Amino acid sequence: MTACKIDFEPVGRRGECQSKESLLACARKLGVGISSICGGKGTCHSCRVQILSGSVSKPTPSELETFSPQELKAGWRLACQTYPRNNIKVNVPAESMTTPQRLQVEGQEVTVRPQPPVKAYRLKLAVPSLEAPQADADNLLQKLNQKDKLNCKKVDIGALRVISDQLRSWKWQCQAAVRSGEVIALLPPRSHPLGLAIDLGTTKIAGYLVNLSDGKTLAAKGVMNPQISHGEDIISRINGAVHSEEERTQIQELAAEAISQLGADLCTEVSAKPEEIVEVVVVGNTAMHHLFLSLPVRQLALAPFIPAVSRALDIKARNLNLNFAPGAYVHLLPNIAGFVGADHVAMLLTTGVGQKKGPIVALDIGTNTEVSLIHDGRIVTTSCASGPAFEGGHIKYGMRAANGAIERLQITGDKVRYQTIGEAPPVGICGSGILDALAQLYLSKAVDEGGRLNADHPRVRSFRGQRQFILVSKEERKGQPAITITQRDVRELQLAKAAIRSGIQALLEASGVTEEEIKQVIIAGAFGTYINVASALEIGMLPSLPLARFLQAGNAAGMGAKLALISLKQRAQAQALTSRVRYIELASAPQFEQTFMQASYLGQYRIIGGRREAISGDPG
Amino acid sequence: MTACKIDFEPVGRRGECQSKESLLACARKLGVGISSICGGKGTCHSCRVQILSGSVSKPTPSELETFSPQELKAGWRLACQTYPRNNIKVNVPAESMTTPQRLQVEGQEVTVRPQPPVKAYRLKLAVPSLEAPQADADNLLQKLNQKDKLNCKKVDIGALRVISDQLRSWKWQCQAAVRSGEVIALLPPRSHPLGLAIDLGTTKIAGYLVNLSDGKTLAAKGVMNPQISHGEDIISRINGAVHSEEERTQIQELAAEAISQLGADLCTEVSAKPEEIVEVVVVGNTAMHHLFLSLPVRQLALAPFIPAVSRALDIKARNLNLNFAPGAYVHLLPNIAGFVGADHVAMLLTTGVGQKKGPIVALDIGTNTEVSLIHDGRIVTTSCASGPAFEGGHIKYGMRAANGAIERLQITGDKVRYQTIGEAPPVGICGSGILDALAQLYLSKAVDEGGRLNADHPRVRSFRGQRQFILVSKEERKGQPAITITQRDVRELQLAKAAIRSGIQALLEASGVTEEEIKQVIIAGAFGTYINVASALEIGMLPSLPLARFLQAGNAAGMGAKLALISLKQRAQAQALTSRVRYIELASAPQFEQTFMQASYLGQYRIIGGRREAISGDPG
Repeated sequence: MTACKIDFEPVGRRGECQSKESLLACARKLGVGISSICGGKGTCHSCRVQILSGSVSKPTPSELETFSPQELKAGWRLACQTYPRNNIKVNVPAESMTTPQRLQVEGQEVTVRPQPPVKAYRLKLAVPSLEAPQADADNLLQKLNQKDKLNCKKVDIGALRVISDQLRSWKWQCQAAVRSGEVIALLPPRSHPLGLAIDLGTTKIAGYLVNLSDGKTLAAKGVMNPQISHGEDIISRINGAVHSEEERTQIQELAAEAISQLGADLCTEVSAKPEEIVEVVVVGNTAMHHLFLSLPVRQLALAPFIPAVSRALDIKARNLNLNFAPGAYVHLLPNIAGFVGADHVAMLLTTGVGQKKGPIVALDIGTNTEVSLIHDGRIVTTSCASGPAFEGGHIKYGMRAANGAIERLQITGDKVRYQTIGEAPPVGICGSGILDALAQLYLSKAVDEGGRLNADHPRVRSFRGQRQFILVSKEERKGQPAITITQRDVRELQLAKAAIRSGIQALLEASGVTEEEIKQVIIAGAFGTYINVASALEIGMLPSLPLARFLQAGNAAGMGAKLALISLKQRAQAQALTSRVRYIELASAPQFEQTFMQASYLGQYRIIGGRREAISGDPG
Repeated sequence: MTACKIDFEPVGRRGECQSKESLLACARKLGVGISSICGGKGTCHSCRVQILSGSVSKPTPSELETFSPQELKAGWRLACQTYPRNNIKVNVPAESMTTPQRLQVEGQEVTVRPQPPVKAYRLKLAVPSLEAPQADADNLLQKLNQKDKLNCKKVDIGALRVISDQLRSWKWQCQAAVRSGEVIALLPPRSHPLGLAIDLGTTKIAGYLVNLSDGKTLAAKGVMNPQISHGEDIISRINGAVHSEEERTQIQELAAEAISQLGADLCTEVSAKPEEIVEVVVVGNTAMHHLFLSLPVRQLALAPFIPAVSRALDIKARNLNLNFAPGAYVHLLPNIAGFVGADHVAMLLTTGVGQKKGPIVALDIGTNTEVSLIHDGRIVTTSCASGPAFEGGHIKYGMRAANGAIERLQITGDKVRYQTIGEAPPVGICGSGILDALAQLYLSKAVDEGGRLNADHPRVRSFRGQRQFILVSKEERKGQPAITITQRDVRELQLAKAAIRSGIQALLEASGVTEEEIKQVIIAGAFGTYINVASALEIGMLPSLPLARFLQAGNAAGMGAKLALISLKQRAQAQALTSRVRYIELASAPQFEQTFMQASYLGQYRIIGGRREAISGDPG
C-alpha cells in the first residue's frame, strides 16, 4: 500500500490517496464529483478520465472493451477500474463530471494573447498648490498623456466623482484605467485591472473573473438567475416586460443585481474589490440580451421576430445598474437574429469554426436550440423550438440538475440503474437523465419507433388511462409516488428531438451537404456537454455519425465571453463571424413539415432521396 | 390726438397708444417694465430708451441736459419726456428695465452661424419581414449611413430602449439625431432638434430654448434655484455636500429637477416635447458646476482650492438626472480655477474680448466677483471675495430683487426718492438700490470718505449705539419699522467694493497697465447689468474712466451658453480662451493689503506711484 499524490484537473483539486483506492474513490474523498451509474462496477462507462502523468494499474477487461487502443494509449481509463501506483495527474472531462461540479470548471482557461480593451497606467502626479492650482482631472490627463504618448481627452463622470478623494488618499499615486482614450477609473497603485465574463442563461448565470493584464481566470462561479421569479421560461418574462414598464425594469434589475453580486463574490474570493472590475462582457440569447439591457421585446416575440439591435454594443455598466468601476463598460457581443443570440456567436468564436473549412455542425441545445452549419467559408444558422423537455420542463418528473435528480440511467431487462446528483435519494429526472431514459426505453423496447409505450413491458403500467414506465417504484421510494416516464413525456421528447434533428436537416439541405459529409458535430452548452452522445444518437436526435466526430465543447458561450473580454481582436472576429451568417427561418424552409415528421420517429436513420431510412446497430 | 403703434424691443411687446401718452405710460400700459425713480418728472434719468424708427416729440430741457448731441442723434431719449407722433419702434436697454423684466430678455438673440453638435436626418426605413428580419437599430444605421455618407456606428442605449416602438408608431419614418457618429435619439418625422442653454446661478436659473438648426431662441425663462433649501450661499451648500453623500445627491437632484422642469416648461410654450431637447449647455461658477455634476467639493473649499476638473465636459443628460432626449448630452464649458467658473468663460466668449487687443477689463459682480484683464493677447484673471452685500446679503434691510425692493434711489438734501420693484410699498433694498444708496449717501455727505455716517445729517439717527440713515421712515411705512442703512451696512459695502477695485488693481499691476489705458470695462451679470455705473464710479468701486468706456453686457453667461449650444466652433474658442488664461491668486499678489486699504475709501481715485489720489467731480 502506497500513499500517492493525486492532482485532479481542471478542477485543480489535489490530495493524498492510497494505492488500494480506485481513482473514483479518491475523487470522492477529495470532493471531486465523477459520474458513476453502476456504482463502480465498470459497466456503465460513465466515469471516463484521462491520466496525464504518473503510473496507474493495468486496464481491466471492462476498460479494454470500453476504449480503443489509441484511447488507452492517450491515457483514457474508467476511474472506477483504475488504481494509482505513484503520484498522478488526472484530467476529468466535463462529460464525466457530476452536474454540480461542472459549472465551476467549464472553460477555465483561454489561450489567446490578451489584447484587452482596458489598460492600466501607473502614474505619480504633481501635488497642486496655490501657485499651481491645476484641477485633478487635468493634472491626471496631462501626466498620463506625457507618460505613454496617449491622447486621452476624457475622464468618465463616475470616475470624476471620486477622483479627488482617491488621489489624496493614495498620496497622488494611482493607476489610470484607460479605454479608447477615456479614463474610466482610477485604481489603487498596486492592483490589477479586472474583467468579468458573464454567460447569462435563462436559468443560470455563470461568471468568470479575469485578470485583464494576462488573461488568467482568477475565479469562477455560477448562480441561479433570479429572473425566474418572473417566469421559468423566456416567453413568460417577455410577456411580463411587455405588460408593464415597471416589470421590464424589475426584470432588468434582477439580472443586474445578480451579476453585481456575482462580481462582488468573485472579487472577495481573490481579495479584490468590485470597483477594480473595469470591463464586463455579457453573452446570452437575444431575449435575455434584450431583457438585460431593458430593450423593447414586444416586436421580438411576434413575427417577424425583430431584435431592437443586433450589432455589438458597449454600454456603461452604471446604465445597466451594475456596480463595478465607476466608468466600466459592458460589451455585448452581436446577436444574429431574434432566436439566435450572442451566446451562439460566442460559441462559434470559442470553437474557432469560422476559420475551418467544414462541413461542421455546431449546436447549443436548450429550449431554443441554435444550430450553425459551417461550410466553405459560409455560415448558415437556424433556431429550433426544441422546447423545455431536455431541461426537465413539461416532463412529469422532470427537474433541474439539483440534488436527487437522476442524471444518468441504464435499463437492462426489467432492471433500472440510475445515478442521482449528490447521490441523494431520487426525486426526479434532469435533462441528461431524461435523454438517457428515452434512449434506454427505446433500446429495451419499452417504446417502439413511433414512441408508443409497450404495454407488455414489465415496468409499463397504465394509470388514469395513460401508460407510463416506472423508473423508480413507490416501494423503492418508501411510499412516495413512483418516478415515471409517461406516454405524454415520450411525446414531448419526440417533439424536442425532432425539432433539433430537422433543424440540422434544413441547414444541410440549404447548403447542399449530406449528413455523411459532416466532419464534426460540436455540441455546446450545459446540457449538451453533459449528455451521453450515444443516447442522443440512439433516439435519432443527432445525425448517425461515428462517435469520434462529436465534440462536447463545454460552456463554449462562457468561454467566448472570456475571449471577448480579454481580446479586442476576438471581438472583431465575433463581429466578422456574425456578418457572415445567413439566418434561415425554419418555418419557411422547403418541405419542413415532412422533415419534421421523419425526425420525430425514434431510432437512428438517414435521409436518402428524401426518404427516411432506419439504421440499426452502433454506427461507431 | 393720434393712435400710434408702438413696438418695444427686445421684449417684443407691441400695442397701440395715444400720442398724449408718454413712452413711459405706453410701456406701463403694455406691461413693459421701465425704470423710473422720480415718477416721470424727468429728473432721475433712469428711463433712458432709444427710438429705433418713427417720429416722436422734441427733446425737453431735461433731456437736452441728460444726453449729448450724439446720443440724441442716435435716438436716445427719456421715456417719461417723450411722446409718440406716429408708429415707432423703441429699444429698451437692460439697464432701463425693472428687475422682473430683465431675465426674460437678456441675451435673446445670438448672431453666430449655427454649427450645432447635433444634426437631425430624415429617414424612411425598410419594413422588416421574415425574409429580411433586420434588427431595428441596424436597419436605421444602414439607411442613415447610406443617405448622408455618415459613419455612425453607435445608437445610445436610451434611444435603443424606445427605438422599436417609435419606428412602428411612426410607420418607419423618423429623424435620427446624430452627435459625433452616435445616434442619440429618434425624433418624430416633423420636428426640430432643440437645444437648452442654462445659466445655473446660485440664486437663479435662466433657461433658453433654442432651435438647433437655425440657432433661434424659441423661449426663455428664469426660475429660482431650489438648492437654496441647502443654503443661500455657495459655502453652505458645499458644506452640505461634504457633510454627507446623501446631501450631495440631494443638492444635485434639486438642480437637475429644476432644469428638467424649466426645459419642460419652455417646451410647453412652443408646443414641443422635452424628448426633443437633444443637447444642453450649462454654465455656472465652479462650485455650482461641481455641485450640479455631483463632483467632490471638499478640496474645492480648502486651500489650494482645487477643482476636480477644469476642462470642458460632455456628459449624458441621464447621468445628471435630466429628462430630455434619451441620449442627449450636457456640455459643460471649461472653468478656470476654483473661484473662476465656466460662467466667466461664457462671458469672455460672448463679449468676444479674446479677439481684442485691449486693455479691456471684464467683470462679473457677485458674491465672488470674477475679473479678467485682456491685453495684447494675454488674459489675466482673478477672483475677488466681494461677499453678498451687493446681492442684499449681510445688509440689514438687504433683499433679493423681488416685489417691494428699492432698486433705485436719489438723495437730495433731506429728501429720499426711490423706486421699488413692482411699484409695491418698500420692504427692503436690493443690490442696485444698495449701490445707489452708498453713492447717494457719499454725494449728500451723509457718509464721509472713510465711510463714517455723519451724525449731523438730518436723516442720520443713532439706534442702540449704532448710527443709521433713514431711507424710509416709520411714518412713511405706516408704523412698520423704518428702512435704514446702518453704519455696519456701510462697512460691509466698503469691504465689497474694495475687494472688486483691488482685484482690478492687482490685474493691472500684474500686466503693467495703468487705469487710464483701459479701453473698455465690460460689466456682466444680473447685478452688473442693472447697476447705475455712475454710482459705482462715485464710490470708487470701478476705475475713474469716462462713462462711455463702460459696457453693461447683460446676462453674458447665458448668452455664452447659447453660443456654445449652437456652435462647435464657439466651444473650441471657449477652450482656447481658457487655455490662454493665467489665474492670479489675490492673496499672493504683491502689496495686496495696501491696495485693498486704498480701495476701501469712498470717492473716485487713482493710484499714482503707489499712492491713492482722490478725484473730485464727474470724470465723464
